[in-house]
Amino acid sequence: MNANARPFQERLRNAQLQSGSALCVGIDVDPRRLPEGLAPDRRGIEQFIRGIIEATADLVSVYKPNLAFFEALGDDGPPLVRSTLAAIPDSVLSIGDAKRGDISTTAERYATALFEVFGFDAATVNPYQGWDSVEPYIRDPSRGAFLLCKTSNPGSVDFQDLLCEYQGQRLPLYEVVARRAVEWAGAGNVGLVVGVTYPEDLSRMRQVATDLPILIPGVGAQGGEASEALERGARPDGTLAIVSVSRQVLYASSGADWAAAARAEALKLRDALRVPAPSASG
Amino acid sequence: MNANARPFQERLRNAQLQSGSALCVGIDVDPRRLPEGLAPDRRGIEQFIRGIIEATADLVSVYKPNLAFFEALGDDGPPLVRSTLAAIPDSVLSIGDAKRGDISTTAERYATALFEVFGFDAATVNPYQGWDSVEPYIRDPSRGAFLLCKTSNPGSVDFQDLLCEYQGQRLPLYEVVARRAVEWAGAGNVGLVVGVTYPEDLSRMRQVATDLPILIPGVGAQGGEASEALERGARPDGTLAIVSVSRQVLYASSGADWAAAARAEALKLRDALRVPAPSASG
Repeated sequence: MNANARPFQERLRNAQLQSGSALCVGIDVDPRRLPEGLAPDRRGIEQFIRGIIEATADLVSVYKPNLAFFEALGDDGPPLVRSTLAAIPDSVLSIGDAKRGDISTTAERYATALFEVFGFDAATVNPYQGWDSVEPYIRDPSRGAFLLCKTSNPGSVDFQDLLCEYQGQRLPLYEVVARRAVEWAGAGNVGLVVGVTYPEDLSRMRQVATDLPILIPGVGAQGGEASEALERGARPDGTLAIVSVSRQVLYASSGADWAAAARAEALKLRDALRVPAPSASG
Repeated sequence: MNANARPFQERLRNAQLQSGSALCVGIDVDPRRLPEGLAPDRRGIEQFIRGIIEATADLVSVYKPNLAFFEALGDDGPPLVRSTLAAIPDSVLSIGDAKRGDISTTAERYATALFEVFGFDAATVNPYQGWDSVEPYIRDPSRGAFLLCKTSNPGSVDFQDLLCEYQGQRLPLYEVVARRAVEWAGAGNVGLVVGVTYPEDLSRMRQVATDLPILIPGVGAQGGEASEALERGARPDGTLAIVSVSRQVLYASSGADWAAAARAEALKLRDALRVPAPSASG
């Protein structure tokens, strides 16, 4: 997977063409929620993640393991991140949902952990500390950094919605983040995280960040609609949106049919999240 | 250490009285920078961290392991975090410098990793996602969360300095964070991170957050003065500042005398960072 050195947006486009879908499955595994027949230990979690990936890999363009759930497993965390990434086929991208943010030398260590130790294709990054906290994640044009912009949670109003003075305008903080991301996206490998739970903000961020990929959480358990996420978050040609769903797929059934149930949910979502192939005329 | 269930500020005060010092030593171990005689592997890193703690524990009130450096070690990371915490005496607090920030259910997993799996006494938290991303870290009044406010790096100007409309005033974003932190600090266990590299901002944040602990990076390798950090960051009675120094202590010598050299640096810093005992009259 890491030998793939094409520019990040090209890799994303290829993954979406291969699956025909903007679907991203978030891997947020809580051992207390494993389905029937799986032990709440390292082996059970590994079986579960592998089973979910095998049941859905042809339907998704991106998997998004959430690091918090791995870290809560202590010593089992890093080996489980590695076995998860090993189970993802080369045609599907991985985003390490880490939301890291730290100053330059420390950011470099986090980027090393995510991109070299684990081998993620991209990571989510918290922009609060500014440029030198983002730069280590975008040095390699084949890997991407998705900056938190307008997040899907209720608390996102606390700071992200503050009106700020920026270049003679009054803009919400999340829009300033989007505008800086556009400036920083020289190699095309900077993206945004914008939740579908604030649908008008998602539409607006697509207008501001015309050529940036947008990772869109908030579908399913958080209340958003997959099709709305794609309509508002994609470019007019249907590209550059990544719609993330976690619990709706992972925990589609708590019974022994969990893998088949996950596939059935992923199929429905794939159909709601079709990415058109380019027309023959290009 | 975790049996200590007194309120966080009381625990901090006790640690500072015991050592007589506001000194916090950041543990940012890069295996490429280990001194003479130590192998760049798990055992060498463990020896180094243990040696640094043994050489300095009576002089410091807080150790601040930086999670990025542990995560870059892959599978060795979690065991080394645990052995680091095990080496810290009960009289000294630990802050997990993780700068995590995520939405509610995920934030709970991060808090579980930091406070239950590892057993840190406090953590640094990125406030960008708002209240529900902070709340899981402050449920236990004996543990603290230090919110990134005005950080020590050059990029901190990019977003933290933006002027925002807040309650009829125009305030820099970092000051809005400080004001929200004051509102959220019901149990006294919310603190701020403010770098001494922006000294006037540090003085101002002490005025805004009268009763909150402030963790102050930026001394030493980043150019700030320890005594200035204490003067500007502490309350008038000399309390509630935690002045963090990493490389100046850790890498005081690259020779075989590294432990003695670390102690000599910590002694100098302790003397610059004296916390007065309360007067007999209270």
